[in-house]
Amino acid sequence: MARPDDRAPDQLRPVRIQRGWLDHAEGSVLIEFGGTRVLCAASVQDSVPRWRRDSGLGWVTAEYAMLPRATNTRNERESVKGRLGGRTQEISRLIGRSIRACVDYKALGENTVQLDCDVLQADGGTRTAAITGAYVALADAVAWMRERGLTKGEPLIGSVAAVSVGVIDGEARLDLCYEEDVAAQTDMNVVCTGDGRFVEVQGTAEGCPFDRAELDALLDLAAGGCAELTALQREVLGR
Amino acid sequence: MARPDDRAPDQLRPVRIQRGWLDHAEGSVLIEFGGTRVLCAASVQDSVPRWRRDSGLGWVTAEYAMLPRATNTRNERESVKGRLGGRTQEISRLIGRSIRACVDYKALGENTVQLDCDVLQADGGTRTAAITGAYVALADAVAWMRERGLTKGEPLIGSVAAVSVGVIDGEARLDLCYEEDVAAQTDMNVVCTGDGRFVEVQGTAEGCPFDRAELDALLDLAAGGCAELTALQREVLGR
Amino acid sequence: MARPDDRAPDQLRPVRIQRGWLDHAEGSVLIEFGGTRVLCAASVQDSVPRWRRDSGLGWVTAEYAMLPRATNTRNERESVKGRLGGRTQEISRLIGRSIRACVDYKALGENTVQLDCDVLQADGGTRTAAITGAYVALADAVAWMRERGLTKGEPLIGSVAAVSVGVIDGEARLDLCYEEDVAAQTDMNVVCTGDGRFVEVQGTAEGCPFDRAELDALLDLAAGGCAELTALQREVLGR
Amino acid sequence: MARPDDRAPDQLRPVRIQRGWLDHAEGSVLIEFGGTRVLCAASVQDSVPRWRRDSGLGWVTAEYAMLPRATNTRNERESVKGRLGGRTQEISRLIGRSIRACVDYKALGENTVQLDCDVLQADGGTRTAAITGAYVALADAVAWMRERGLTKGEPLIGSVAAVSVGVIDGEARLDLCYEEDVAAQTDMNVVCTGDGRFVEVQGTAEGCPFDRAELDALLDLAAGGCAELTALQREVLGR
Amino acid sequence: MARPDDRAPDQLRPVRIQRGWLDHAEGSVLIEFGGTRVLCAASVQDSVPRWRRDSGLGWVTAEYAMLPRATNTRNERESVKGRLGGRTQEISRLIGRSIRACVDYKALGENTVQLDCDVLQADGGTRTAAITGAYVALADAVAWMRERGLTKGEPLIGSVAAVSVGVIDGEARLDLCYEEDVAAQTDMNVVCTGDGRFVEVQGTAEGCPFDRAELDALLDLAAGGCAELTALQREVLGR
Amino acid sequence: MARPDDRAPDQLRPVRIQRGWLDHAEGSVLIEFGGTRVLCAASVQDSVPRWRRDSGLGWVTAEYAMLPRATNTRNERESVKGRLGGRTQEISRLIGRSIRACVDYKALGENTVQLDCDVLQADGGTRTAAITGAYVALADAVAWMRERGLTKGEPLIGSVAAVSVGVIDGEARLDLCYEEDVAAQTDMNVVCTGDGRFVEVQGTAEGCPFDRAELDALLDLAAGGCAELTALQREVLGR
Repeated sequence: MARPDDRAPDQLRPVRIQRGWLDHAEGSVLIEFGGTRVLCAASVQDSVPRWRRDSGLGWVTAEYAMLPRATNTRNERESVKGRLGGRTQEISRLIGRSIRACVDYKALGENTVQLDCDVLQADGGTRTAAITGAYVALADAVAWMRERGLTKGEPLIGSVAAVSVGVIDGEARLDLCYEEDVAAQTDMNVVCTGDGRFVEVQGTAEGCPFDRAELDALLDLAAGGCAELTALQREVLGR
Repeated sequence: MARPDDRAPDQLRPVRIQRGWLDHAEGSVLIEFGGTRVLCAASVQDSVPRWRRDSGLGWVTAEYAMLPRATNTRNERESVKGRLGGRTQEISRLIGRSIRACVDYKALGENTVQLDCDVLQADGGTRTAAITGAYVALADAVAWMRERGLTKGEPLIGSVAAVSVGVIDGEARLDLCYEEDVAAQTDMNVVCTGDGRFVEVQGTAEGCPFDRAELDALLDLAAGGCAELTALQREVLGR
Repeated sequence: MARPDDRAPDQLRPVRIQRGWLDHAEGSVLIEFGGTRVLCAASVQDSVPRWRRDSGLGWVTAEYAMLPRATNTRNERESVKGRLGGRTQEISRLIGRSIRACVDYKALGENTVQLDCDVLQADGGTRTAAITGAYVALADAVAWMRERGLTKGEPLIGSVAAVSVGVIDGEARLDLCYEEDVAAQTDMNVVCTGDGRFVEVQGTAEGCPFDRAELDALLDLAAGGCAELTALQREVLGR
Repeated sequence: MARPDDRAPDQLRPVRIQRGWLDHAEGSVLIEFGGTRVLCAASVQDSVPRWRRDSGLGWVTAEYAMLPRATNTRNERESVKGRLGGRTQEISRLIGRSIRACVDYKALGENTVQLDCDVLQADGGTRTAAITGAYVALADAVAWMRERGLTKGEPLIGSVAAVSVGVIDGEARLDLCYEEDVAAQTDMNVVCTGDGRFVEVQGTAEGCPFDRAELDALLDLAAGGCAELTALQREVLGR
Repeated sequence: MARPDDRAPDQLRPVRIQRGWLDHAEGSVLIEFGGTRVLCAASVQDSVPRWRRDSGLGWVTAEYAMLPRATNTRNERESVKGRLGGRTQEISRLIGRSIRACVDYKALGENTVQLDCDVLQADGGTRTAAITGAYVALADAVAWMRERGLTKGEPLIGSVAAVSVGVIDGEARLDLCYEEDVAAQTDMNVVCTGDGRFVEVQGTAEGCPFDRAELDALLDLAAGGCAELTALQREVLGR
Repeated sequence: MARPDDRAPDQLRPVRIQRGWLDHAEGSVLIEFGGTRVLCAASVQDSVPRWRRDSGLGWVTAEYAMLPRATNTRNERESVKGRLGGRTQEISRLIGRSIRACVDYKALGENTVQLDCDVLQADGGTRTAAITGAYVALADAVAWMRERGLTKGEPLIGSVAAVSVGVIDGEARLDLCYEEDVAAQTDMNVVCTGDGRFVEVQGTAEGCPFDRAELDALLDLAAGGCAELTALQREVLGR
């Protein structure tokens, strides 16, 4: 099975990051990984959760959701169902953990940055696009805070980017689209820091278990993809 | 108080309607009324709700929601709260009733068109933008159905458009932005058909009750605004 | 189609208002519009919602509900379903907004009056009966507060009453019973102050859109009906 | 502590049973035990729960609820809270079990009678008033079914009535009002059949444990009270 | 029908109480009544519910639940359903009331003991095993508090134990297993103090109503069973 | 920081697997990894979820939960909160995916095996103990099915076991207890098949990102631990 868009196995889809997509949010980004389109908004609040109060430390948290017709067939809204699905909560937690890896809570002061990642259109890799875009939205929100003297030093101790990789017909591929995601025997989401270390490695054997060699090939591919995304984040942020 | 954007009292904000904003949906529109931005998706399903089965009649329904950072300060997600708010349900019901006014259920066949109106950014008039955009998304979905021979005659017996009007400092104004909406003594949402009749008239005295003369002035203004929006819908749909 | 009870088109059903129907509530009314029977209870609380604290202002809010067998066939309880329906919330919000139109929050002091409107039996016009009855219950609760020195001046700056109107076979009719409500092409609920101004106008084309002439006829009819109800409220309150 | 209304220890409060209080329900009763006022509606449905289908047997079930201002201070609605409280479910289950003790499911045919007991005003003994009234509503609903040929023989194999008893200052008392209920060291609800046997005995030591002699005195008192209520049910039903 | 395990009618099943089954809880007991196995954990918290604050009084409360495969066929989890069933809440309330009968709130200080009774395996009598075991867990938690100087005098003013009794084929039997529970015409749960007084008596006619003689026989049997369980509790606690 | 129980870095805690811990379940295991104690029950149902019907294929699914006092301080029940937490759902999904890696759905026939993993006591590694124990419970349930002729060939195409690994003070350690889990800079859960391939790799940088060398060391350690657990599973199952 060739790649649907004729990419090389180690090639990302076209990635597009538009900053300032929303008027109200302190940071906002519309990020596209091919047909996947995620709106990331960063909201600054001058308080922290109850368990964090009077610690002098800030907090960063994230919520992920999908519009009902982001996908090929319509999904019922979780607000209508009255409960969050397991997948939604799992991805929200993943985004939060990933982004927190580049944050210095002390420098953030007792403020919270809430990241909202809403998938407007889904074509595979929504969680990795969300993480990659959320970092840029966070960077803009932190800049907004810095201008207003709300920070105490530099709250960003690095950057994070994420990409999916998978094995299809025995071939390791970077940045799977939906069609490939469904066909993959093994599927892995990898989150890296800007200096190439790992924050999250989540590999799952969808079809059949994978051996160490496959795992190594996937990790190599993912590390390369994250490095490219890091470069793009820097360029977009004008650094 | 002058209008924040120096419009004439009977002037709409710049309205922009982009068709085909989503790849998967049978009809989709990104509609903007000034800073208000609503994504309207129409999904065709080849079935009807249980109470409608074996009637030979179709159905059209709508859901309205707002992204958490569509507004000036962030709102908690209704999916996280685990319950739909009264305002959300009220507007969803209004959109559904309004759009159904231009539908011939028999011609639709036993199919459902589900309209999802998600507010990406809010600056007043989100429900009227949603109705105006949802009609265009519906028209595209109906065209999609027609091409596939799913309809029996013409399911659209007219069109609908909607606009808000309000009284501020004694002056009747068309298409209120958020700042005006908050300041209005009286606030009215009006839904009209393309031939100028009324589908919904919902007037509320926010500050002080209104007399018949004020009501008449608002209705005149709204009818004019809906006529302009109808013309725009036609132009966009190439009719 | 003649009226089921042979009323003239502009004639109300027999309206009956019994004050003091409950022993515990600060104000309580059993109001009947023909077969529609609503129990309205006003509860005084010496506090206000969190967002209102330390403002020196009071608050008035309302909740509407229907007993399961108020209707022709039994409806499941919303407490059993675990969620409030859209109709319930919409009517609760309407009652609250309507009643607040006659309240001076400063004179109320930092107290809340909670209005509970429970439909014991439904035969059309439950929301308008609820508003008309709730005003009387509120008046009694305010009198109770005045006697105890809890008010600062007169909290009631007017009165409100409400009635439904509709078009059936081209004829505008006042105060629809259930059978007429179902048959109406257009249905409107109108809330007026005691001095004849409008608080809420909510018109809906159930069957086919209505023109301005129909709308005008309905508004005239409703204004007359509200004036009659206002007179009755005054009589019952001994003013 | 004397009884607040100077009753003898073995005297019921004035009991009033109004049949046919609702127009729509197949059976309906407004029952009063002194200040306690419960509306009991019986709804006939020509089906049974899923687990009962094709058994040839009918079903009887009950739901109990309280209006928010039935009590001295207002209680939040369970529909608003989004969950049924333990007390509500416990009493609903008790009413259902009690009433089912007098039903022949075979004679009922595959029909369900749903009993709704809504407390309009509470002054102690709401669950026992509900059971006593629900039986009369059921009898009327069964008569309605019999007239339409829906039954197969006599579905009522007896009657049930219920009363509360308690120990206050060492004295056993019948049919406690709210003030006594709060003061009772021991509180018992007893449900009896018309022929004097026990269906439910639910005794609780609120303050201090009770010995066998006290228990015996309470059972005697309750049996007498139920017999009186049975006589009243018969009289009201014209038997 | 003979007893499935050939017991005499007034004979308990083998009862086993293991203290200290959990490492973390301040008191914990695995109690077995034959095949019924309940894990009772007592958790000490140095605070009381809001309505109890600054009273100088403590609180004891209980929650009961069943693992999904405690029973013969699997039951869906209440956490997955999103709501507590009526039976669960009813039994939780019963356990709490029963245990509170032996507690001196003043001596407990402003602390709460939370009792969690989780049924690992069910074979009839789960609520009575839970009460009997919860008392022992409470006693251990109170000892833990006493060692740390958290009590003011003796918080336990007695003990409680509970057992089920029922009538099968006209024979009164003690401590029903599941098979007998299903077959019983009458079923009663009785909670007694260590000195033989009654805390709760809950008798239900499952099949046919019971007369006073049957009730008396059941009460005798239950009082005897509770006395045996009390002796066992004392022995296990080394008193 | 030495290991709290003086283990070597590559040493498992004492692991104990008791089969047949429940009387009713088709397969049941109480598994202990040191102080962590998980009850795994396998329930066989002769049906499959709706989306799987008439496919000839079976299904295996899992639910994970924790008793409220499994942990050092008590956690509120999710059934009481009315919603499943994100962590619970995430682990339930992980267990289900892991176990399904060793199942041949065709050989299972149209049956479902539901695995319930309830943590009775938690001391780190609850999810890995749950997976390791659930496999044994599944094997027993499959044997039960085989004896009854419900399978079509061998439904188990391998085995799965799981273990946690982590980096503490730069040292890679196997099978972390709670105290180590909290202290770990990096934490990874690894699920392997009996033949040493990977099913799930979930690594998270709790404190600081990890490099490829650390990742490799952790994977080696985990693969060794899983191999030991696989041997133990075989021994316990008498293979």
